[in-house]
Amino acid sequence: MQKKFTVNPWEVTGEVDYGKLIKEFGVQPLSKELIEKIEKKAGGTHLYLRRGLFFSHRDFDVIMDEYEKGKEFVLYTGRGPSGRTHLGHLIPWIFTAYLQKAFGCKLYFQMTDDEKFLMRDVGLEEAVGYSYDNALDVIAAGMEPGKTVIFSDVEYIKTIYRIALDVAKRVTFSTAKAVFGFTNSSNIGIIFFPAVQASPAFMAQMLEKRNVNCLIPCAIDQDPYWRIARDVAPALGMPKPAGIYSKFLPGLQGVGGKMSASKEDTAIYTTDSAPVARKKVMAAFTGGRATVAEQKEKGGNPEVCVVHQWLYYMFEENDEKLRNSFDDCKAGRILCGECKKYLADKVCRFLEEHQKKRENAKKEIDRFMVKD
Amino acid sequence: MQKKFTVNPWEVTGEVDYGKLIKEFGVQPLSKELIEKIEKKAGGTHLYLRRGLFFSHRDFDVIMDEYEKGKEFVLYTGRGPSGRTHLGHLIPWIFTAYLQKAFGCKLYFQMTDDEKFLMRDVGLEEAVGYSYDNALDVIAAGMEPGKTVIFSDVEYIKTIYRIALDVAKRVTFSTAKAVFGFTNSSNIGIIFFPAVQASPAFMAQMLEKRNVNCLIPCAIDQDPYWRIARDVAPALGMPKPAGIYSKFLPGLQGVGGKMSASKEDTAIYTTDSAPVARKKVMAAFTGGRATVAEQKEKGGNPEVCVVHQWLYYMFEENDEKLRNSFDDCKAGRILCGECKKYLADKVCRFLEEHQKKRENAKKEIDRFMVKD
Repeated sequence: MQKKFTVNPWEVTGEVDYGKLIKEFGVQPLSKELIEKIEKKAGGTHLYLRRGLFFSHRDFDVIMDEYEKGKEFVLYTGRGPSGRTHLGHLIPWIFTAYLQKAFGCKLYFQMTDDEKFLMRDVGLEEAVGYSYDNALDVIAAGMEPGKTVIFSDVEYIKTIYRIALDVAKRVTFSTAKAVFGFTNSSNIGIIFFPAVQASPAFMAQMLEKRNVNCLIPCAIDQDPYWRIARDVAPALGMPKPAGIYSKFLPGLQGVGGKMSASKEDTAIYTTDSAPVARKKVMAAFTGGRATVAEQKEKGGNPEVCVVHQWLYYMFEENDEKLRNSFDDCKAGRILCGECKKYLADKVCRFLEEHQKKRENAKKEIDRFMVKD
Repeated sequence: MQKKFTVNPWEVTGEVDYGKLIKEFGVQPLSKELIEKIEKKAGGTHLYLRRGLFFSHRDFDVIMDEYEKGKEFVLYTGRGPSGRTHLGHLIPWIFTAYLQKAFGCKLYFQMTDDEKFLMRDVGLEEAVGYSYDNALDVIAAGMEPGKTVIFSDVEYIKTIYRIALDVAKRVTFSTAKAVFGFTNSSNIGIIFFPAVQASPAFMAQMLEKRNVNCLIPCAIDQDPYWRIARDVAPALGMPKPAGIYSKFLPGLQGVGGKMSASKEDTAIYTTDSAPVARKKVMAAFTGGRATVAEQKEKGGNPEVCVVHQWLYYMFEENDEKLRNSFDDCKAGRILCGECKKYLADKVCRFLEEHQKKRENAKKEIDRFMVKD
């Protein structure tokens, strides 16, 4: 059965066919060989790798080849800061921290508060405030101080602007329109923004004169953004940034689409209290049967179950336990309430741990944030 | 006889019909009453006013009314910095200095090095360098230290960006396209630039929280630029900036169009040596007759004579001398060589004086330039 789905930087809806997405975006599946290279360097695997949450890439093979010949790479990722960070946002950050440790990379982390201001009904100083707030979650995800610079676009624009002008001079409205779907009613700030967003891909080379590659870990929907950076890189004498891409952690209300910060019940926020998080998990969509009797008789449907997917991608490291819970569900041996409680416990433990690190990050933030 | 002419911020060609321009741009002629108000406040007139070089305005009457009721105004003007400043560029600056003295205004002076980089084949650091170089001419034009801030867009962008985002959020591509003639092949930097250029009109209010009006003295071709600032002002809770506009000093090669920094012989640069300046003036277009005999018999044509226009607008303060030279020319009593020599002497004296002030400005520049 084929369902309609939409994936672009502004929108992910429908049940995503990742195989189709790989073809449409022209990216590559993450091969076993590449995964092993990462794992070897990291001295161990990562759940997101072995469960295929990170599943595709663009030119990562190229920069790995060059890495093996001695050319280092830096990491770049970012966030459109808003009031609340949710677990879906954390995934690329946690994975970025894993890559940073494995390869000893410098990380550039961009807070696109300018974009948020330009696209949403949010005040400018409010958006800048979110940059500093959300940076706590970035730091809590495990970034290394001394090797990580986090910046608000608005607060670091003097540094960014020179690079962004270099990019912007080489990007026509046509190109930006094709990539971002701008129209005549788009505001002139957001039309310039792709140049601001491309800039950190060139910071190591331009600001530090380092001859390095750049790898962007992010969710697959962000890939089109980097076309601008890739298009202009040769003219700037820079290598094209590579990408390593994740699927979306589904929202609690159903598989398909991604978690949305604007739909409160579909997401667990990093600052949710344990009771709030538990309540949300207990209300998750599972695809369970209408009655206990029916569930016991026919078994559940873990393929469409959000709880199963959350366990699979993020919360159940133990393969055997995961397999057992899948089989038990299919066979009608467990009920949804049990699985939800099991996940809720894990989510609450994760949040407790994250919130400790987040609190600690308040003391560390000056070691990470840069501004002009 | 009607000739074709083009006036927009990028181009001024043909013989300009200023009366028609006033209608097309929807600006007002500068009334005798307004001129007298300025002269009274200044304690004297200015050649540019009494000869009608400054000839039109937009809302200057409004801000004068409010000024008389106690609401101050600031001045804003600017320059697309390039290697060389010519006499045509100096006109609005000299007049701005006159207004600054008369009304005690703070002046914001923008060096649009970002625009130059985006539109021309010039390097970014080169363009920034021109900002500092050209600032010497601005200072030499008579701006008051302590009341004047001159800034390079690139070097002051952190301050500008917050205001520019506020502007940009309210300007659609449609509007920018209508004002600046952008196309699909315009680069995304220059599409954003109108927001950067509008920003200084709001600096006094936004950065210093002063409840003031803003007046922009400039050549008439710059008027369309300010439509963006005027359009968004109400939404920002700011007064619409007013403008006071000059005609163009014609190029040495003929009346019509304006002096062009890219056509070397049409312009006297502020850094030209006396011999170079003299040579250019001596080669000016005068509309004189083909032979001395013919000139003596039929008289010259001062209406189309560049030398006469330069004397009229910029170099001959003495009305009687000017009238005499006009009459003598018409009657064939003087030859072009005499007028050219007369003007060349005046130009060289002006340059000598200006270059002294320009040299002195090198010691003063830190009192004028601001950066982030």
